[in-house]
Amino acid sequence: MGIFQRNEGLLIVLSGPSGAGKGTVSALLRERMPELTYSVSATTRPPRKGEKEGVNYFFKTRAEFERMIAEDQLLEWAEYVGNYYGTPRRLVEERLSEGKDVLLEIEVQGARQVKKRFPQGVFIFLIPPSLEELRRRIEQRGTESEEVVLSRLKRAEEELKEMSHYDYVVVNDQVERACERLCSIIAAEHCRVDRLLSGKTVTWGE
Amino acid sequence: MGIFQRNEGLLIVLSGPSGAGKGTVSALLRERMPELTYSVSATTRPPRKGEKEGVNYFFKTRAEFERMIAEDQLLEWAEYVGNYYGTPRRLVEERLSEGKDVLLEIEVQGARQVKKRFPQGVFIFLIPPSLEELRRRIEQRGTESEEVVLSRLKRAEEELKEMSHYDYVVVNDQVERACERLCSIIAAEHCRVDRLLSGKTVTWGE
Repeated sequence: MGIFQRNEGLLIVLSGPSGAGKGTVSALLRERMPELTYSVSATTRPPRKGEKEGVNYFFKTRAEFERMIAEDQLLEWAEYVGNYYGTPRRLVEERLSEGKDVLLEIEVQGARQVKKRFPQGVFIFLIPPSLEELRRRIEQRGTESEEVVLSRLKRAEEELKEMSHYDYVVVNDQVERACERLCSIIAAEHCRVDRLLSGKTVTWGE
Repeated sequence: MGIFQRNEGLLIVLSGPSGAGKGTVSALLRERMPELTYSVSATTRPPRKGEKEGVNYFFKTRAEFERMIAEDQLLEWAEYVGNYYGTPRRLVEERLSEGKDVLLEIEVQGARQVKKRFPQGVFIFLIPPSLEELRRRIEQRGTESEEVVLSRLKRAEEELKEMSHYDYVVVNDQVERACERLCSIIAAEHCRVDRLLSGKTVTWGE
Protein backbone atom coordinates (compact mmCIF):
# COMPACT_ATOMS: atom_id res chain seq x y z
CA MET A 1 0.00 0.00 0.00
CA GLY A 2 2.76 2.42 0.87
CA ILE A 3 0.37 4.70 2.72
CA PHE A 4 2.69 4.89 5.66
CA GLN A 5 6.40 4.92 5.03
CA ARG A 6 7.58 2.21 7.37
CA ASN A 7 11.30 2.61 7.77
CA GLU A 8 12.02 0.04 10.38
CA GLY A 9 10.90 -3.55 10.87
CA LEU A 10 9.52 -4.91 14.12
CA LEU A 11 11.87 -6.55 16.57
CA ILE A 12 9.82 -9.41 17.99
CA VAL A 13 11.27 -10.83 21.17
CA LEU A 14 9.87 -14.22 22.16
CA SER A 15 10.97 -15.20 25.63
CA GLY A 16 9.65 -16.96 28.70
CA PRO A 17 10.71 -19.54 31.24
CA SER A 18 12.71 -22.58 30.25
CA GLY A 19 10.28 -25.30 29.20
CA ALA A 20 7.56 -22.95 27.97
CA GLY A 21 8.04 -24.29 24.46
CA LYS A 22 9.73 -21.29 22.84
CA GLY A 23 11.62 -23.47 20.35
CA THR A 24 8.59 -25.41 19.13
CA VAL A 25 6.39 -22.34 18.87
CA SER A 26 9.00 -20.24 17.08
CA ALA A 27 9.70 -23.08 14.62
CA LEU A 28 6.02 -23.16 13.67
CA LEU A 29 5.86 -19.38 13.50
CA ARG A 30 8.78 -19.29 11.06
CA GLU A 31 6.98 -21.81 8.90
CA ARG A 32 3.81 -19.69 8.92
CA MET A 33 5.60 -16.38 8.39
CA PRO A 34 8.56 -17.12 6.13
CA GLU A 35 9.05 -13.35 5.64
CA LEU A 36 10.22 -13.14 9.27
CA THR A 37 13.98 -13.02 9.75
CA TYR A 38 14.96 -15.49 12.43
CA SER A 39 17.99 -14.49 14.42
CA VAL A 40 20.26 -17.48 15.01
CA SER A 41 21.85 -17.34 18.47
CA ALA A 42 25.42 -18.13 19.42
CA THR A 43 26.02 -20.55 22.29
CA THR A 44 28.72 -22.46 24.08
CA ARG A 45 26.44 -25.34 24.97
CA PRO A 46 27.06 -28.56 23.05
CA PRO A 47 24.70 -29.29 20.12
CA ARG A 48 21.68 -31.47 20.98
CA LYS A 49 20.82 -34.33 18.66
CA GLY A 50 19.82 -33.00 15.26
CA GLU A 51 20.90 -29.42 15.88
CA LYS A 52 22.84 -27.80 13.05
CA GLU A 53 25.51 -25.12 13.03
CA GLY A 54 24.13 -21.85 11.67
CA VAL A 55 20.57 -23.16 11.65
CA ASN A 56 19.76 -23.80 15.31
CA TYR A 57 22.78 -22.05 16.78
CA PHE A 58 26.25 -20.85 16.04
CA PHE A 59 28.22 -23.17 18.31
CA LYS A 60 31.19 -21.40 19.91
CA THR A 61 33.94 -22.17 22.39
CA ARG A 62 34.00 -20.10 25.57
CA ALA A 63 37.06 -18.22 24.29
CA GLU A 64 35.31 -17.36 21.02
CA PHE A 65 32.17 -16.26 22.82
CA GLU A 66 34.08 -14.08 25.23
CA ARG A 67 35.80 -12.35 22.33
CA MET A 68 32.37 -11.58 20.82
CA ILE A 69 31.34 -10.04 24.14
CA ALA A 70 34.54 -7.98 24.33
CA GLU A 71 34.08 -6.72 20.76
CA ASP A 72 30.44 -5.76 21.37
CA GLN A 73 29.27 -8.09 18.62
CA LEU A 74 26.30 -9.26 20.71
CA LEU A 75 22.95 -7.58 21.10
CA GLU A 76 22.46 -9.52 24.33
CA TRP A 77 24.10 -12.39 26.05
CA ALA A 78 23.59 -14.43 29.18
CA GLU A 79 25.20 -17.23 31.06
CA TYR A 80 22.61 -19.85 31.72
CA VAL A 81 23.11 -23.17 33.53
CA GLY A 82 26.84 -22.93 32.85
CA ASN A 83 26.66 -21.96 29.18
CA TYR A 84 26.73 -18.72 27.26
CA TYR A 85 23.90 -17.77 24.91
CA GLY A 86 23.85 -14.60 22.83
CA THR A 87 22.47 -12.80 19.79
CA PRO A 88 24.86 -11.56 17.10
CA ARG A 89 23.82 -7.96 16.55
CA ARG A 90 24.76 -7.20 12.94
CA LEU A 91 22.14 -9.23 11.08
CA VAL A 92 19.38 -8.05 13.41
CA GLU A 93 20.18 -4.39 12.96
CA GLU A 94 20.62 -4.72 9.20
CA ARG A 95 17.28 -6.43 8.66
CA LEU A 96 15.38 -4.04 10.90
CA SER A 97 16.77 -1.08 9.01
CA GLU A 98 15.69 -2.72 5.74
CA GLY A 99 12.14 -2.70 7.16
CA LYS A 100 12.04 -6.44 7.82
CA ASP A 101 10.63 -7.98 10.97
CA VAL A 102 13.12 -9.94 13.05
CA LEU A 103 12.29 -12.70 15.53
CA LEU A 104 14.51 -13.26 18.55
CA GLU A 105 13.81 -16.38 20.57
CA ILE A 106 15.84 -15.81 23.71
CA GLU A 107 16.11 -16.43 27.43
CA VAL A 108 14.65 -14.05 29.97
CA GLN A 109 18.02 -12.63 31.02
CA GLY A 110 18.78 -11.72 27.42
CA ALA A 111 15.36 -10.21 26.80
CA ARG A 112 16.01 -7.79 29.64
CA GLN A 113 19.14 -6.51 27.87
CA VAL A 114 17.37 -6.22 24.53
CA LYS A 115 14.61 -4.17 26.14
CA LYS A 116 17.20 -1.61 27.27
CA ARG A 117 18.57 -1.24 23.74
CA PHE A 118 15.30 -1.67 21.84
CA PRO A 119 12.44 -0.46 24.04
CA GLN A 120 10.35 -0.26 20.86
CA GLY A 121 10.58 -4.04 20.45
CA VAL A 122 7.52 -6.27 20.81
CA PHE A 123 8.14 -8.29 23.96
CA ILE A 124 6.18 -11.53 24.18
CA PHE A 125 6.28 -13.80 27.21
CA LEU A 126 5.42 -17.42 26.46
CA ILE A 127 4.20 -19.49 29.40
CA PRO A 128 3.15 -23.11 29.77
CA PRO A 129 -0.39 -23.71 31.01
CA SER A 130 0.79 -24.67 34.52
CA LEU A 131 3.86 -25.35 36.64
CA GLU A 132 3.09 -29.07 36.56
CA GLU A 133 3.14 -29.01 32.77
CA LEU A 134 6.39 -27.08 32.85
CA ARG A 135 8.00 -29.74 35.05
CA ARG A 136 6.75 -32.46 32.73
CA ARG A 137 8.19 -30.74 29.66
CA ILE A 138 11.60 -30.15 31.17
CA GLU A 139 11.85 -33.75 32.37
CA GLN A 140 10.56 -35.14 29.08
CA ARG A 141 13.31 -33.43 27.16
CA GLY A 142 15.49 -36.16 28.70
CA THR A 143 18.75 -34.56 27.70
CA GLU A 144 19.50 -33.07 31.11
CA SER A 145 20.60 -34.52 34.41
CA GLU A 146 18.23 -34.39 37.40
CA GLU A 147 20.32 -31.58 38.82
CA VAL A 148 19.94 -29.53 35.64
CA VAL A 149 16.18 -30.22 35.58
CA LEU A 150 15.79 -28.90 39.13
CA SER A 151 17.99 -25.90 38.41
CA ARG A 152 15.92 -25.08 35.30
CA LEU A 153 12.67 -25.46 37.17
CA LYS A 154 13.77 -23.19 39.98
CA ARG A 155 14.95 -20.63 37.46
CA ALA A 156 11.66 -20.91 35.55
CA GLU A 157 9.69 -20.08 38.69
CA GLU A 158 11.86 -17.01 39.22
CA GLU A 159 11.52 -16.01 35.58
CA LEU A 160 7.73 -16.07 35.71
CA LYS A 161 7.91 -12.97 37.88
CA GLU A 162 9.30 -11.06 34.90
CA MET A 163 5.99 -11.19 33.08
CA SER A 164 5.08 -7.61 33.95
CA HIS A 165 8.03 -6.27 31.93
CA TYR A 166 6.58 -7.71 28.72
CA ASP A 167 3.98 -6.34 26.32
CA TYR A 168 2.15 -9.60 25.76
CA VAL A 169 1.75 -12.95 27.44
CA VAL A 170 0.87 -16.00 25.36
CA VAL A 171 -0.18 -19.25 27.00
CA ASN A 172 1.29 -22.20 25.16
CA ASP A 173 -1.60 -24.60 25.77
CA GLN A 174 -1.44 -25.84 22.18
CA VAL A 175 1.40 -25.00 19.82
CA GLU A 176 -0.99 -24.14 16.96
CA ARG A 177 -3.02 -21.77 19.08
CA ALA A 178 0.04 -20.13 20.60
CA CYS A 179 1.39 -19.61 17.09
CA GLU A 180 -1.88 -18.04 15.93
CA ARG A 181 -1.75 -15.62 18.84
CA LEU A 182 1.79 -14.64 17.86
CA CYS A 183 0.68 -14.01 14.27
CA SER A 184 -2.17 -11.83 15.56
CA ILE A 185 0.18 -9.86 17.79
CA ILE A 186 2.56 -9.19 14.90
CA ALA A 187 -0.29 -8.15 12.57
CA ALA A 188 -1.77 -5.89 15.25
CA GLU A 189 1.56 -4.24 16.02
CA HIS A 190 1.86 -3.28 12.35
CA CYS A 191 -1.40 -1.33 12.76
CA ARG A 192 -0.37 0.56 15.90
CA VAL A 193 -0.74 4.29 15.44
CA ASP A 194 2.26 5.14 17.62
CA ARG A 195 4.49 2.99 15.40
CA LEU A 196 3.03 4.34 12.18
CA LEU A 197 3.28 7.97 13.22
CA SER A 198 6.56 7.90 15.16
CA GLY A 199 8.78 10.25 13.24
CA LYS A 200 7.36 9.07 9.95
CA THR A 201 5.79 11.16 7.23
CA VAL A 202 2.20 10.20 6.66
CA THR A 203 1.69 10.18 2.92
CA TRP A 204 -1.97 9.26 3.09
CA GLY A 205 -4.25 10.50 0.39
CA GLU A 206 -2.00 10.37 -2.68
CA MET B 1 -8.04 -21.57 30.17
CA GLY B 2 -8.92 -19.47 33.18
CA ILE B 3 -5.28 -18.77 33.94
CA PHE B 4 -6.00 -15.10 34.23
CA GLN B 5 -9.24 -14.01 35.78
CA ARG B 6 -10.54 -11.60 33.20
CA ASN B 7 -13.25 -9.55 34.84
CA GLU B 8 -14.02 -7.11 32.11
CA GLY B 9 -14.53 -7.48 28.36
CA LEU B 10 -12.81 -5.30 25.78
CA LEU B 11 -14.57 -2.22 24.53
CA ILE B 12 -13.65 -2.10 20.86
CA VAL B 13 -14.31 1.27 19.27
CA LEU B 14 -14.30 1.25 15.48
CA SER B 15 -14.36 4.75 14.09
CA GLY B 16 -12.95 6.76 11.22
CA PRO B 17 -14.03 9.28 8.64
CA SER B 18 -17.37 9.05 6.92
CA GLY B 19 -16.99 6.83 3.87
CA ALA B 20 -14.17 4.69 5.30
CA GLY B 21 -16.46 1.67 5.21
CA LYS B 22 -17.09 1.23 8.94
CA GLY B 23 -20.52 -0.33 8.36
CA THR B 24 -19.36 -2.92 5.83
CA VAL B 25 -16.29 -3.89 7.83
CA SER B 26 -18.14 -4.16 11.13
CA ALA B 27 -20.88 -6.27 9.51
CA LEU B 28 -18.25 -8.77 8.33
CA LEU B 29 -16.50 -8.68 11.70
CA ARG B 30 -19.74 -9.53 13.50
CA GLU B 31 -20.18 -12.49 11.15
CA ARG B 32 -16.63 -13.69 11.87
CA MET B 33 -16.83 -13.09 15.61
CA PRO B 34 -20.40 -13.87 16.66
CA GLU B 35 -19.29 -13.77 20.30
CA LEU B 36 -18.82 -10.01 19.96
CA THR B 37 -21.67 -7.89 21.34
CA TYR B 38 -22.59 -5.27 18.79
CA SER B 39 -23.89 -2.07 20.26
CA VAL B 40 -26.86 -0.77 18.26
CA SER B 41 -26.84 3.04 18.08
CA ALA B 42 -29.74 5.40 18.42
CA THR B 43 -30.24 8.04 15.73
CA THR B 44 -32.64 10.69 14.55
CA ARG B 45 -31.75 10.25 10.90
CA PRO B 46 -34.39 8.54 8.76
CA PRO B 47 -33.83 4.82 8.00
CA ARG B 48 -32.03 4.07 4.73
CA LYS B 49 -33.45 1.41 2.47
CA GLY B 50 -33.29 -1.98 4.17
CA GLU B 51 -32.34 -0.66 7.61
CA LYS B 52 -34.25 -2.18 10.49
CA GLU B 53 -35.26 -0.77 13.89
CA GLY B 54 -33.20 -2.37 16.66
CA VAL B 55 -30.86 -4.06 14.20
CA ASN B 56 -29.13 -1.24 12.37
CA TYR B 57 -30.29 1.57 14.65
CA PHE B 58 -32.88 2.55 17.20
CA PHE B 59 -34.67 5.27 15.25
CA LYS B 60 -35.72 8.16 17.49
CA THR B 61 -37.39 11.53 17.17
CA ARG B 62 -35.37 14.56 18.20
CA ALA B 63 -37.49 14.92 21.33
CA GLU B 64 -36.89 11.29 22.33
CA PHE B 65 -33.18 11.58 21.67
CA GLU B 66 -32.88 14.78 23.68
CA ARG B 67 -34.59 13.10 26.61
CA MET B 68 -31.99 10.28 26.44
CA ILE B 69 -29.24 12.90 26.57
CA ALA B 70 -30.87 14.67 29.52
CA GLU B 71 -31.25 11.39 31.42
CA ASP B 72 -27.61 10.38 30.78
CA GLN B 73 -28.71 7.22 29.00
CA LEU B 74 -26.05 7.66 26.32
CA LEU B 75 -22.42 6.66 26.47
CA GLU B 76 -21.70 9.16 23.73
CA TRP B 77 -23.69 11.21 21.28
CA ALA B 78 -23.02 13.59 18.48
CA GLU B 79 -24.88 15.76 16.05
CA TYR B 80 -23.67 14.99 12.59
CA VAL B 81 -24.91 16.59 9.35
CA GLY B 82 -28.08 17.64 11.13
CA ASN B 83 -28.87 14.37 12.88
CA TYR B 84 -28.19 12.94 16.31
CA TYR B 85 -26.31 9.66 16.74
CA GLY B 86 -25.64 8.03 20.10
CA THR B 87 -24.82 4.86 22.00
CA PRO B 88 -27.21 3.63 24.70
CA ARG B 89 -24.96 2.98 27.67
CA ARG B 90 -26.71 0.23 29.63
CA LEU B 91 -26.16 -2.76 27.36
CA VAL B 92 -22.52 -1.81 26.78
CA GLU B 93 -21.73 -1.55 30.47
CA GLU B 94 -23.59 -4.75 31.33
CA ARG B 95 -21.84 -6.86 28.71
CA LEU B 96 -18.40 -5.50 29.56
CA SER B 97 -18.91 -6.32 33.22
CA GLU B 98 -19.95 -9.85 32.22
CA GLY B 99 -16.52 -10.17 30.57
CA LYS B 100 -17.86 -9.92 27.02
CA ASP B 101 -16.24 -7.87 24.29
CA VAL B 102 -18.39 -5.07 22.90
CA LEU B 103 -18.03 -3.47 19.48
CA LEU B 104 -18.98 0.18 19.00
CA GLU B 105 -19.06 1.41 15.42
CA ILE B 106 -19.30 5.16 15.84
CA GLU B 107 -18.44 8.54 14.41
CA VAL B 108 -15.25 10.34 15.31
CA GLN B 109 -16.99 12.90 17.55
CA GLY B 110 -18.52 10.12 19.60
CA ALA B 111 -15.29 8.15 19.83
CA ARG B 112 -13.69 11.17 21.48
CA GLN B 113 -16.32 11.10 24.25
CA VAL B 114 -15.98 7.34 24.74
CA LYS B 115 -12.22 7.72 25.12
CA LYS B 116 -12.77 10.08 28.04
CA ARG B 117 -15.02 7.58 29.82
CA PHE B 118 -13.24 4.40 28.73
CA PRO B 119 -9.57 5.19 28.19
CA GLN B 120 -8.93 1.44 28.44
CA GLY B 121 -10.97 0.88 25.25
CA VAL B 122 -9.33 -0.35 22.06
CA PHE B 123 -9.58 2.56 19.64
CA ILE B 124 -9.35 1.63 15.98
CA PHE B 125 -9.34 4.18 13.18
CA LEU B 126 -10.51 2.84 9.85
CA ILE B 127 -9.37 4.75 6.78
CA PRO B 128 -9.99 4.32 3.07
CA PRO B 129 -6.92 3.80 0.90
CA SER B 130 -7.03 7.39 -0.45
CA LEU B 131 -9.07 10.59 -0.49
CA GLU B 132 -10.11 9.86 -4.09
CA GLU B 133 -11.51 6.52 -3.01
CA LEU B 134 -13.28 8.20 -0.10
CA ARG B 135 -14.97 10.66 -2.45
CA ARG B 136 -16.01 7.82 -4.75
CA ARG B 137 -17.53 5.85 -1.86
CA ILE B 138 -19.50 8.77 -0.48
CA GLU B 139 -20.87 9.66 -3.93
CA GLN B 140 -21.66 6.05 -4.79
CA ARG B 141 -23.84 5.70 -1.72
CA GLY B 142 -26.25 7.84 -3.79
CA THR B 143 -28.57 8.51 -0.90
CA GLU B 144 -27.28 12.01 -0.20
CA SER B 145 -27.60 15.34 -1.96
CA GLU B 146 -24.49 16.96 -3.47
CA GLU B 147 -24.43 19.39 -0.57
CA VAL B 148 -24.37 16.54 1.95
CA VAL B 149 -21.63 14.75 -0.02
CA LEU B 150 -19.43 17.85 0.09
CA SER B 151 -20.16 18.41 3.75
CA ARG B 152 -19.25 14.79 4.56
CA LEU B 153 -16.07 14.97 2.52
CA LYS B 154 -14.91 18.15 4.22
CA ARG B 155 -15.68 16.61 7.60
CA ALA B 156 -13.81 13.44 6.64
CA GLU B 157 -10.68 15.44 5.83
CA GLU B 158 -10.90 17.13 9.21
CA GLU B 159 -11.51 13.80 10.95
CA LEU B 160 -8.40 12.23 9.47
CA LYS B 161 -6.37 14.50 11.71
CA GLU B 162 -7.74 12.61 14.73
CA MET B 163 -5.78 9.49 13.86
CA SER B 164 -3.13 10.16 16.48
CA HIS B 165 -5.66 9.78 19.29
CA TYR B 166 -6.29 6.16 18.34
CA ASP B 167 -4.46 2.97 19.22
CA TYR B 168 -4.62 1.39 15.79
CA VAL B 169 -5.17 2.44 12.22
CA VAL B 170 -6.58 -0.05 9.73
CA VAL B 171 -6.55 0.68 6.02
CA ASN B 172 -9.75 -0.53 4.40
CA ASP B 173 -8.24 -1.48 1.06
CA GLN B 174 -10.23 -4.70 0.95
CA VAL B 175 -13.04 -5.49 3.37
CA GLU B 176 -11.73 -9.03 4.01
CA ARG B 177 -8.25 -7.83 4.82
CA ALA B 178 -9.48 -5.00 7.00
CA CYS B 179 -11.63 -7.48 8.90
CA GLU B 180 -8.68 -9.85 9.41
CA ARG B 181 -6.65 -6.99 10.83
CA LEU B 182 -9.45 -6.21 13.27
CA CYS B 183 -9.59 -9.86 14.37
CA SER B 184 -5.82 -9.79 14.93
CA ILE B 185 -6.04 -6.61 16.96
CA ILE B 186 -8.75 -8.07 19.20
CA ALA B 187 -6.82 -11.33 19.69
CA ALA B 188 -3.62 -9.42 20.46
CA GLU B 189 -5.32 -7.11 22.95
CA HIS B 190 -6.48 -10.18 24.87
CA CYS B 191 -2.81 -11.10 25.32
CA ARG B 192 -1.65 -7.68 26.55
CA VAL B 193 0.15 -7.96 29.86
CA ASP B 194 -1.12 -4.61 31.13
CA ARG B 195 -4.71 -5.77 30.62
CA LEU B 196 -4.11 -9.18 32.15
CA LEU B 197 -2.31 -7.84 35.20
CA SER B 198 -4.31 -4.64 35.82
CA GLY B 199 -5.76 -5.15 39.25
CA LYS B 200 -6.37 -8.82 38.55
CA THR B 201 -5.16 -11.77 40.56
CA VAL B 202 -2.89 -13.96 38.53
CA THR B 203 -3.89 -17.52 39.29
CA TRP B 204 -1.24 -19.07 37.08
CA GLY B 205 0.16 -22.42 38.06
CA GLU B 206 -2.88 -24.18 39.52
